[in-house]
Amino acid sequence: MLRIILSGFGVVGQSFAKLLLSRSEDLYAKHGLKPRIVGVFDSKGSAASPAGIDLDRLLETKKKYGNIRKYHNKERESNGLEMIKGMEAEVLIETTPSNYKDAEPGMSHIVTAMKKGLHVITVNKGPLALAFPSLMELATYNHVQLMFSGTVGGGTPILDYAKNSLRGERIVSFQGILNGTTNYILTNMTAGGMSFKTALADAKKRGYVEADESLDIDGFDAAAKLVILANWIMDMKVTIKDIKRTGIRGIETSDIKKAASSRSAVKLVASCDRKLEVSPRSISVDDPLCVNGTLNAITFNSEHSGQQTIIGRGAGGMETASSILRDLLDIKQEMGRV
Amino acid sequence: MLRIILSGFGVVGQSFAKLLLSRSEDLYAKHGLKPRIVGVFDSKGSAASPAGIDLDRLLETKKKYGNIRKYHNKERESNGLEMIKGMEAEVLIETTPSNYKDAEPGMSHIVTAMKKGLHVITVNKGPLALAFPSLMELATYNHVQLMFSGTVGGGTPILDYAKNSLRGERIVSFQGILNGTTNYILTNMTAGGMSFKTALADAKKRGYVEADESLDIDGFDAAAKLVILANWIMDMKVTIKDIKRTGIRGIETSDIKKAASSRSAVKLVASCDRKLEVSPRSISVDDPLCVNGTLNAITFNSEHSGQQTIIGRGAGGMETASSILRDLLDIKQEMGRV
Repeated sequence: MLRIILSGFGVVGQSFAKLLLSRSEDLYAKHGLKPRIVGVFDSKGSAASPAGIDLDRLLETKKKYGNIRKYHNKERESNGLEMIKGMEAEVLIETTPSNYKDAEPGMSHIVTAMKKGLHVITVNKGPLALAFPSLMELATYNHVQLMFSGTVGGGTPILDYAKNSLRGERIVSFQGILNGTTNYILTNMTAGGMSFKTALADAKKRGYVEADESLDIDGFDAAAKLVILANWIMDMKVTIKDIKRTGIRGIETSDIKKAASSRSAVKLVASCDRKLEVSPRSISVDDPLCVNGTLNAITFNSEHSGQQTIIGRGAGGMETASSILRDLLDIKQEMGRV
Repeated sequence: MLRIILSGFGVVGQSFAKLLLSRSEDLYAKHGLKPRIVGVFDSKGSAASPAGIDLDRLLETKKKYGNIRKYHNKERESNGLEMIKGMEAEVLIETTPSNYKDAEPGMSHIVTAMKKGLHVITVNKGPLALAFPSLMELATYNHVQLMFSGTVGGGTPILDYAKNSLRGERIVSFQGILNGTTNYILTNMTAGGMSFKTALADAKKRGYVEADESLDIDGFDAAAKLVILANWIMDMKVTIKDIKRTGIRGIETSDIKKAASSRSAVKLVASCDRKLEVSPRSISVDDPLCVNGTLNAITFNSEHSGQQTIIGRGAGGMETASSILRDLLDIKQEMGRV
């Protein structure tokens, strides 16, 4: 049995609970994995059960009341750090929203969990963006694993591809479209002829934009992903401060038209090629990297295997939940080895 | 030390020799791998040295004389099967040309090697296309590994991605553009307005077409790759006879124009979705799968992680050599475990 504390019960947390429900038999049969969520907390409340929370009932509670406080007859306050410190578990899954100022509350959750000897799976990018190198050191020091497949590419295993599928190969540089929201806006400005303002409003209406729009529009989200890729794939020791970052607020219809006149499109590109940069750039529509809508794409330039591009949906609750499950399978396998 | 017999010394075989020369220090330092090619043969001659062939001299000999017979003072005839049977080695690398009639001589090389207990890395698709299920059984029976990363996607690790990066996920269906030559021809018919005949002639001039043009044009190459993907990723037990195959000979300029009128392009698509089929189909230019020139692409439809596309060069000597090296690293790792 693998006991899990789940931090955050938003779209990703709920999708993960649903995924566990639908996959439980198959996970045990195929992978010998018996995950049990023993504690869940978000900003409004918490639920706990050492034998495993009833996920059906937890999801119903959330749906009915908008929070998980009423899972127990006696409502429980949110008590993230206390739960991590006090409950017996093997893994913390951290899914609270990213923030690039102090990365809290995720940072404290992750640090507290690792110090207690819990493996951590985070889809919260904030702590990694601000402190990837030191968090990795802390994980090594405490003999735990810190996993983060869902932080880049959602369900598309970009990190795994670069690290594992390309093993024995050297990646020389890479460039990617790593934020679906800005790509959607730029696509509408290109194909639909919208102004930035109209395209932003449209993206908001569809629920594609973060509560703090700056995270998408000013390139923080893309920069955070670039930090993770640079550390993980290129062995660089960098944080978000090392990224030269320009967002898409300044893009005007004239820029879009100018690009189109040379069969190109303006995209928010995150690149690692000596320097690390996120900025709007004009790329050829014939380049496989030039994807539209909310798609994400990344091109790796490798020493011997040439240029390779991966394209996928960069977000989505179930997609990200599936990446958490992959991390969990890896942790299980690694634990079995020790 | 890992002793290798190399079957075939064409573009791929030579690229592999060059790759070993350039990477030898790094392979030992990073992976503890010390590969030695102890025997090489092609249709015209052979070279052997139990302590390891001098690859620089072998490459020079090939360059100077067009074959490897003169590597030894006393010229050696080609003696593939005898070499496999007689020489001590751990791995056979099979790089002779694919043929879809009887898959010889590759089939005999592979079977003989596995029966003798050698691991096999093949970039020759013929034997797999005709007998994937039984070759896999033979490998299992003889406790050896049969690896074939380079058969699909060249240096782009498509097989590895689907099997490993997407572990814990179920691939429901996939479709791909798996033959660069036909894609190059169709691209020229679309963008350049060429007739099939002119486009084929152009592709031949550039050296993109197999000596037997039918392998590309009539879809045998794409069908062989589809067989490998279907067996490896979908656990189907099929051979090339199970593929419904239509090539691109019948494509006319009018078909291309008709597709273009609905923002689509005609591509030779290999698909696995209940039935297995290779045929020219019209796909939207906005689909990430719709790549041009000699590029290859494949889209996997997964149960939870959505649709994912990988794009890369499908061929090239050094790219394919890099995939052989990846297989060799896997064999080394697996041998270490036993």
